[in-house]
Amino acid sequence: MKLVSKRILKEGKIEEFINVFKELTGPSRAEEGCLSYELFQDQKDPRVFSIIEEWADQEALDEHKKAAHFVKLVPALDELTEKKLDFNIYNKVV
Amino acid sequence: MKLVSKRILKEGKIEEFINVFKELTGPSRAEEGCLSYELFQDQKDPRVFSIIEEWADQEALDEHKKAAHFVKLVPALDELTEKKLDFNIYNKVV
Repeated sequence: MKLVSKRILKEGKIEEFINVFKELTGPSRAEEGCLSYELFQDQKDPRVFSIIEEWADQEALDEHKKAAHFVKLVPALDELTEKKLDFNIYNKVV
Repeated sequence: MKLVSKRILKEGKIEEFINVFKELTGPSRAEEGCLSYELFQDQKDPRVFSIIEEWADQEALDEHKKAAHFVKLVPALDELTEKKLDFNIYNKVV
């Protein structure tokens, strides 16, 4: 399953956001069932980012949400976010 | 670079959309510079799909848009689409 979370950051917070995300990647990618955990920046608007994650199953994603690094760092990312623009959890079809 | 294209399909067109996308995947994935080319279905709304593609560079994406399979099949996908919801091209950060 693929998770896409799109947001626009507060003014002047790009570097800080990337640094917090970097703290989150190591332990998240090491979790069982984490297939990918990546951050992307929009080519047109540098304040727009999407986090794109892939998890083996719902159980793995549920465990991720309980992990210490998630509980500590995701609120820090949200604090640097002006607005969440979109959020979907997808199943791979093709 | 990562491309995310989100859309909602017309009523009753899910199966046809997936079949047309399957025709597109083979030749697209075989293109030089195509790193991934996948279709995802939203877990909450089965008519919402995102195509997520990864390309080595802009040149590869430009070539893709000129390919015979793209020119033939992407309008067929659009014909089955009720509304395009979102479209972004991203650079990978982390």
